[in-house]
Amino acid sequence: MTGARQMLDTYPGDFGFDADALAECIAACLDCTQTCTACADACLAEERVAELRHCITLDLNCADVCAATGRVLSRQTAYDADMTRAVLEACATACKVCGDECSQHGEMGMEHCRVCAEACRRCERACRALLSASS
Amino acid sequence: MTGARQMLDTYPGDFGFDADALAECIAACLDCTQTCTACADACLAEERVAELRHCITLDLNCADVCAATGRVLSRQTAYDADMTRAVLEACATACKVCGDECSQHGEMGMEHCRVCAEACRRCERACRALLSASS
Amino acid sequence: MTGARQMLDTYPGDFGFDADALAECIAACLDCTQTCTACADACLAEERVAELRHCITLDLNCADVCAATGRVLSRQTAYDADMTRAVLEACATACKVCGDECSQHGEMGMEHCRVCAEACRRCERACRALLSASS
Amino acid sequence: MTGARQMLDTYPGDFGFDADALAECIAACLDCTQTCTACADACLAEERVAELRHCITLDLNCADVCAATGRVLSRQTAYDADMTRAVLEACATACKVCGDECSQHGEMGMEHCRVCAEACRRCERACRALLSASS
Repeated sequence: MTGARQMLDTYPGDFGFDADALAECIAACLDCTQTCTACADACLAEERVAELRHCITLDLNCADVCAATGRVLSRQTAYDADMTRAVLEACATACKVCGDECSQHGEMGMEHCRVCAEACRRCERACRALLSASS
Repeated sequence: MTGARQMLDTYPGDFGFDADALAECIAACLDCTQTCTACADACLAEERVAELRHCITLDLNCADVCAATGRVLSRQTAYDADMTRAVLEACATACKVCGDECSQHGEMGMEHCRVCAEACRRCERACRALLSASS
Repeated sequence: MTGARQMLDTYPGDFGFDADALAECIAACLDCTQTCTACADACLAEERVAELRHCITLDLNCADVCAATGRVLSRQTAYDADMTRAVLEACATACKVCGDECSQHGEMGMEHCRVCAEACRRCERACRALLSASS
Repeated sequence: MTGARQMLDTYPGDFGFDADALAECIAACLDCTQTCTACADACLAEERVAELRHCITLDLNCADVCAATGRVLSRQTAYDADMTRAVLEACATACKVCGDECSQHGEMGMEHCRVCAEACRRCERACRALLSASS
C-alpha cells in the first residue's frame, strides 16, 4: 500500500474521486517527479550532453508539473473540479511530451531515459483515468 | 526592470515569445505564487478560519500551479510549444478560480484576499496574453 | 525496489553516497512531502481546525523542505558536499519539529497525524544517516 | 513596494521578524529562485554546456532551496523559530555555494552567471540578516 493510499484512509471527509484511482495517480505523480529529476541529472552526466538538451528541459518541466499535480490531488478539502481538471490535463500533456522524447533515447540504449519514459506513461495514464472518471 | 527581464536579456539564444510578454508572465507567476502562499497563511490566522477552507485550498493549489508555470516559462532552451500551452492553460484556470474566490472575500473586507485576487487576475491575464500570442 | 533505487542503477557516473542509503533517503523525502501535504489538508477538514493551525503550518513547511531535499539528493552530477549537508540538516530539523507536533495529535486520536509523524521520523532518520555517512 | 511587503501589511496578526527585513528576504528568495532557474537554462543553451555541469546542478539546487525558503518565510501563522532558522541557514549556504560558482563564470564573460551571482549574494545577505535578527 502506498503512503498516499494510507493517508486517504485517514481523511475525515469525502473526496471527489475513487480512492484507489486517486491514490494511484498521486503515487504516479510523485514517482514521475523524482524519475524526471533524476533523468535530467543523468542526461547532464552523459558525455553527449549537448544532444540531450531537449530531454533535459522536458524532464525538468515534467518534474515541476507532476509535483504541482501531486500536491493539488493531495488536497481534497474544498475540492474544485475545474481547477483539478485543468491541472490533470496539463500533467497528462507534459507526461506525453516528455515520455515521447525519453522513449526515443531509451530505444537507443539510454537506460535512464527508458525507465523515465515508463514513469511518464504510467503518470499520463493515471491522469487520464482520473479525467475520464470525473467527466 | 524585473529580474526575469534582465535574465532574458542575457539569454544566449532565441525564445518562443516576445521578451516583454514573457518576462511579464514569469514575474506575474512568481508574484502570484508568493501572494497565494501568504493569503493561505493569513486566512489560517483569521478567527473565522473554518469559513475560509475553500479559499485556503485554492490558494495553496494556485501557488503550486503558478510556481510550476513560472519555472516552465523560465526554460527557453529546447522549448516545447505543446507542453508550454498546456501549462499556461492550467495556470490561467487556476488563477481564475482562485481569483473569483478571493475576490468575494475581498469585497467583504478581507484585505489579503483583495490583494491576492488582484495578483490572480494579473497572472491570468499574462497567461492568456502568451496563449493568444502563441496560437 | 523504489523508483529512486532503479534510477540510481541507471546513473552513468559515481555518486557521493552509498546507493541504498541515498535511495532510501530520496524515497523518504518524497513520501514525507506527500504525507505532510495530505496531513495539512486533513487537518483543514477537521471540525476543530482552529486548534490545528500550528500543525498545518508545520506540515506545509515540512512538505516544502522535504520536496527540495528530495530534488537536491536526486542530482548527483557535480555533487557539492557543503550544499547537500546544509539541506540535509534543514530537512532533519523540519522533520523533527513537524514529527513532534504531529505525534502529539496522533496520540490524541488523529490518525492522519499519527501516520504523518511516522513519515517525518523515517525521513529524519534517513537524513541523519546520510549526514553521518558523509561526515 | 514588493508584493511580499504589501501582503505583510494585510496580515491579521504579529510576525516573528521586522516586516521590512522579512519582506526583503522573501523577495530575494523569489528572485533567486527565478534567476537560478533561468541561469541553468541559459547554461544549457551554451555551446560549452559540458563545462557548465557543475553550475547547472548548483543553479537547480539553489532554485529549489530558495523556493522552499520563500514559502516557509511567507507562513507566519504559528511560526516555529527552530524550523525557520534551519531553513534560513540552508538557504544562505546554497546561495553562497551557487554564488561562488556563478561569480567565476561571470568574471569570464558569462552575463547570465554574473546576474545570477548577484541574486545569490543578495539572497544570502538577506537570509543572514534575518538569522542575526532572530538570534
